[in-house]
Amino acid sequence: MPVLVMKFGGTSVATLDRIKRAAKRVGLEVAKGYDVIVIVSAMSGETNKLVGFVNETSPLYDAREYDAVVSSGENVTAGLMALTLQEMDIPARSWQGWQVPVQTTSAHSSARIEAIPTDNISAKFNEGMKVAVVAGFQGISPEGRITTLGRGGSDTTAVAFAAAFEAERCDIYTDVDGVYTTDPRISSKARKLEKISFEEMLELASLGAKVLQTRSVELAMRYKVKLRVLSSFEEPSEEAGTLVCAEEEVMENRPVSGIAYSRDEAKMTLVDVADKPGIAAAIFGPLSEAGVNVDMIIQNVAEQGLTDMTFSCPTDQVLRAQKALNDAKGRGDINFQELIADTDVCKISAVGIGMRSQSGVAAKMFKTLSEEGINIKVIATSEIKISVLIDRKYMELAVQALHDAFELEKL
Amino acid sequence: MPVLVMKFGGTSVATLDRIKRAAKRVGLEVAKGYDVIVIVSAMSGETNKLVGFVNETSPLYDAREYDAVVSSGENVTAGLMALTLQEMDIPARSWQGWQVPVQTTSAHSSARIEAIPTDNISAKFNEGMKVAVVAGFQGISPEGRITTLGRGGSDTTAVAFAAAFEAERCDIYTDVDGVYTTDPRISSKARKLEKISFEEMLELASLGAKVLQTRSVELAMRYKVKLRVLSSFEEPSEEAGTLVCAEEEVMENRPVSGIAYSRDEAKMTLVDVADKPGIAAAIFGPLSEAGVNVDMIIQNVAEQGLTDMTFSCPTDQVLRAQKALNDAKGRGDINFQELIADTDVCKISAVGIGMRSQSGVAAKMFKTLSEEGINIKVIATSEIKISVLIDRKYMELAVQALHDAFELEKL
Repeated sequence: MPVLVMKFGGTSVATLDRIKRAAKRVGLEVAKGYDVIVIVSAMSGETNKLVGFVNETSPLYDAREYDAVVSSGENVTAGLMALTLQEMDIPARSWQGWQVPVQTTSAHSSARIEAIPTDNISAKFNEGMKVAVVAGFQGISPEGRITTLGRGGSDTTAVAFAAAFEAERCDIYTDVDGVYTTDPRISSKARKLEKISFEEMLELASLGAKVLQTRSVELAMRYKVKLRVLSSFEEPSEEAGTLVCAEEEVMENRPVSGIAYSRDEAKMTLVDVADKPGIAAAIFGPLSEAGVNVDMIIQNVAEQGLTDMTFSCPTDQVLRAQKALNDAKGRGDINFQELIADTDVCKISAVGIGMRSQSGVAAKMFKTLSEEGINIKVIATSEIKISVLIDRKYMELAVQALHDAFELEKL
Repeated sequence: MPVLVMKFGGTSVATLDRIKRAAKRVGLEVAKGYDVIVIVSAMSGETNKLVGFVNETSPLYDAREYDAVVSSGENVTAGLMALTLQEMDIPARSWQGWQVPVQTTSAHSSARIEAIPTDNISAKFNEGMKVAVVAGFQGISPEGRITTLGRGGSDTTAVAFAAAFEAERCDIYTDVDGVYTTDPRISSKARKLEKISFEEMLELASLGAKVLQTRSVELAMRYKVKLRVLSSFEEPSEEAGTLVCAEEEVMENRPVSGIAYSRDEAKMTLVDVADKPGIAAAIFGPLSEAGVNVDMIIQNVAEQGLTDMTFSCPTDQVLRAQKALNDAKGRGDINFQELIADTDVCKISAVGIGMRSQSGVAAKMFKTLSEEGINIKVIATSEIKISVLIDRKYMELAVQALHDAFELEKL
């Protein structure tokens, strides 16, 4: 039987009624002859509640315990989904990550999937089971402890299962009906894309577009998994949602495909760092060891052997970054005058594979922001994106202005 | 190092503050030099919420999925407790049932613990860990699926760990400060017992006294585990709570030690059953296979080859019992006119090891109820208890009258 992977996010399984609605969609695919692997998130709000408990208990928590706590929400949904399917007379059972087992690295709270043995679930399919419901977002480390894959990790679970089982397609059911040129809550002119390339989706995902987890897009690109993002609240149809696919399949040709933003970015500045060889390693080594995801980095021109070093990281890692750098300072690895954390910033990014062949995109972006009186604090670019850090209060304005400037509302 | 087992029930870990308070008690025992195994329940309300989800989704649920869902609450508390202890600089980590592993039978939702290998946790104690926090109520079946031990199963987890690790004592922290002659919410004259014998506690537990799960007392009796029930809301002291111990250690000598009651009992009557050899097996075989816990059984005198058979079972198993008996009727195993379920009853029991040597206890109980105008529907007795089923509306009255009649308020 061909295998289909269907992933339901937190809002799609937020209540028992919604689980029932999701189960009906699964039933439609079973009726078409698929063996279905359903990946579920926790009921919406649950994971936030659990993360809140952990943070309140221990701000610099042991990530192994964090994972043990936070993974429990998915187990609940998996069991309830299996029961709902059974009530519809569809043979189904649930699997928790360690039961498959979803083998991951030991990098707790942001582990990577290393392998998904298929024998266990395939054997059940051969016995007549039609749906395997798997708790998303979680796995098991080589030490036998529960791991989680980071926020949005259920998307990655879904794509990894699609790759392992060579699924015909991986459908990601969420609360939006596809990928937009920007967040429709910020710009009413946002337009749904029919198709988007893996590369663009990857940038958008890593830049704060909440539709898919970065890692899931990476995996889909590597294993050529046909990935579809669609809403679980719309009527089923073959054309629903946005297809994430190879560049060649995308027809539109424009410099910018989307504008992304992220509120969860903090600007960290180390004042008066000694400007000498090896200093970057001395700073970013400890940050990396502490699990801080550094995004943008800039270094000012040195004066009298001293320089300022600025980087950005997720706001919820600021405490961790401060501890790592102050510890390194205490050990004498680095020296600096002051460490300033500015959490009142946001990141705005323009993304498009068209940038490769069209020049002037950066200039147009800077000019647009300048015309709105918005000061740019940090810039970072890649082959297909330009990101800037600006004051958070200008976020909506910047997104709307850029969406207009690049004429994204037009087909 | 000597090992101590401490179990905290749902109300003792209902909030992060309460978890902190419980952790402080654990800290006191660690300071005394114990290696501590902490068994935790789910935060109060959580398990009920999850059970509610399952029942709403699938009234005749697949018990394997029930267990997968319902066990998740304990995992959350275990991780949070470990984090809280770590914040107090006490080396601690959490274990979920399958990680220990707590090996159980495959009788989902009421599994029995078969073995608890100690090597895993002992090795960590040897490495300097001071507290192992274990999610109570759960284990793993030989098939590798999650099992639960039935309501109150965390008590059983605690006693089983105390037996496996040859713990010096097993302290059960709950929201009451010990075992009472009856429920203080029903009779203001209820008195706390300093000691109670395993046998009496066993009867009280199985009769609806919510203090300890029956199975936990059985285990404690078999493995001679010193079991103490105490409140996590009182100041720590050596004399706190009630000690459950061998009969010889209990000093008081009275016919009745306590009055228990249970609202969760239904009276099921099979009308006009053929009165022939093998009929009881034909009725109770299918019930047993369906996992119905039949408690009391009475059979009326037969007339013209027909008889009525009455039994009691927990109210939440009524659906299951009806299905099992109607199926058996359909297969022709048994025949009956009608199956009447009366859920408007309750069970009242008088318990005491003194009954063995003193006569007239049953007579006094029946007389007391009769004087209050309470009709007895079913009677069941054992060596140290007398139970009756009566109309539920008389429950409080019956408990108070019997507590007075046996003078339980007096030392």
